[in-house]
Amino acid sequence: MKTSKAEFDATCSLFINSVNNYFRHLTEIDSELNVPYIKQSEGLMLKDYTGMIGISGNRKGFVYISANRIMYEDLIKIFIGIDDPSEEDILDMAGEISNVVAGNVRANLGANFMISVPVVFQGMPSKLKIPEDVSIYVIPIVWNNHEAFVVIGLQ
Amino acid sequence: MKTSKAEFDATCSLFINSVNNYFRHLTEIDSELNVPYIKQSEGLMLKDYTGMIGISGNRKGFVYISANRIMYEDLIKIFIGIDDPSEEDILDMAGEISNVVAGNVRANLGANFMISVPVVFQGMPSKLKIPEDVSIYVIPIVWNNHEAFVVIGLQ
Repeated sequence: MKTSKAEFDATCSLFINSVNNYFRHLTEIDSELNVPYIKQSEGLMLKDYTGMIGISGNRKGFVYISANRIMYEDLIKIFIGIDDPSEEDILDMAGEISNVVAGNVRANLGANFMISVPVVFQGMPSKLKIPEDVSIYVIPIVWNNHEAFVVIGLQ
Repeated sequence: MKTSKAEFDATCSLFINSVNNYFRHLTEIDSELNVPYIKQSEGLMLKDYTGMIGISGNRKGFVYISANRIMYEDLIKIFIGIDDPSEEDILDMAGEISNVVAGNVRANLGANFMISVPVVFQGMPSKLKIPEDVSIYVIPIVWNNHEAFVVIGLQ
């Protein structure tokens, strides 16, 4: 079953709202979301740290949030007050943001939208491959002058 | 909700059967599965290509199958008869095996065990981090003299 354009757009809107809420409520600094665009699986960009979560239920897919270390450092500074976070803190933060953002979308969509645990990785694998029948939507974010990406894939 | 030992073992047994069936029925060469062991998130091993799938439903988690290029080359030779597969063929094969193995487990466990699409990556990210409350089970496989890993994580 392929995702209809309208349904896909609706899911992306929920992600956009969830990201906006995350930054506004938790950091009191608004995020700017740039125009989302459809992307092919080849050439997907990853930044320093990526928190990836599987999606299942009515549709299968994934979502990931990818940002550079400095954005996670700023978030940790604001949330926990740590100025010099460990590698572990950064990895946890990257997992946490993707989990909260996806969790809020899940809370909106209910039992037909289920999420897995976040797997966080540092660095860009040599190649990253998504199945051909997955539509990919990239939402560029700027928060506190840091650029990040929310990438949503749905079958 | 944490996974009980018995439930975790039962899920792992389904994965073991699914892997055995995959190799036996599709390649007519049996796989040997070595003694599974529990692992911490640190130091998780990845080989050349890894197909990762999110798990949701009653439990959240993930499963990945990781093997070197030569194992996927052999599988492609047997399945498709291609002796010199492209990079794309290898990535597809890595996605396919994890999808079929997890799909068979899903078929056994029903609606409470749901799987996402496979995301395949090449190479080892600098770091890989799984949430602390996820129990990780590693099943070493040898098929046709190639070593691979099935790694299951469940909350």
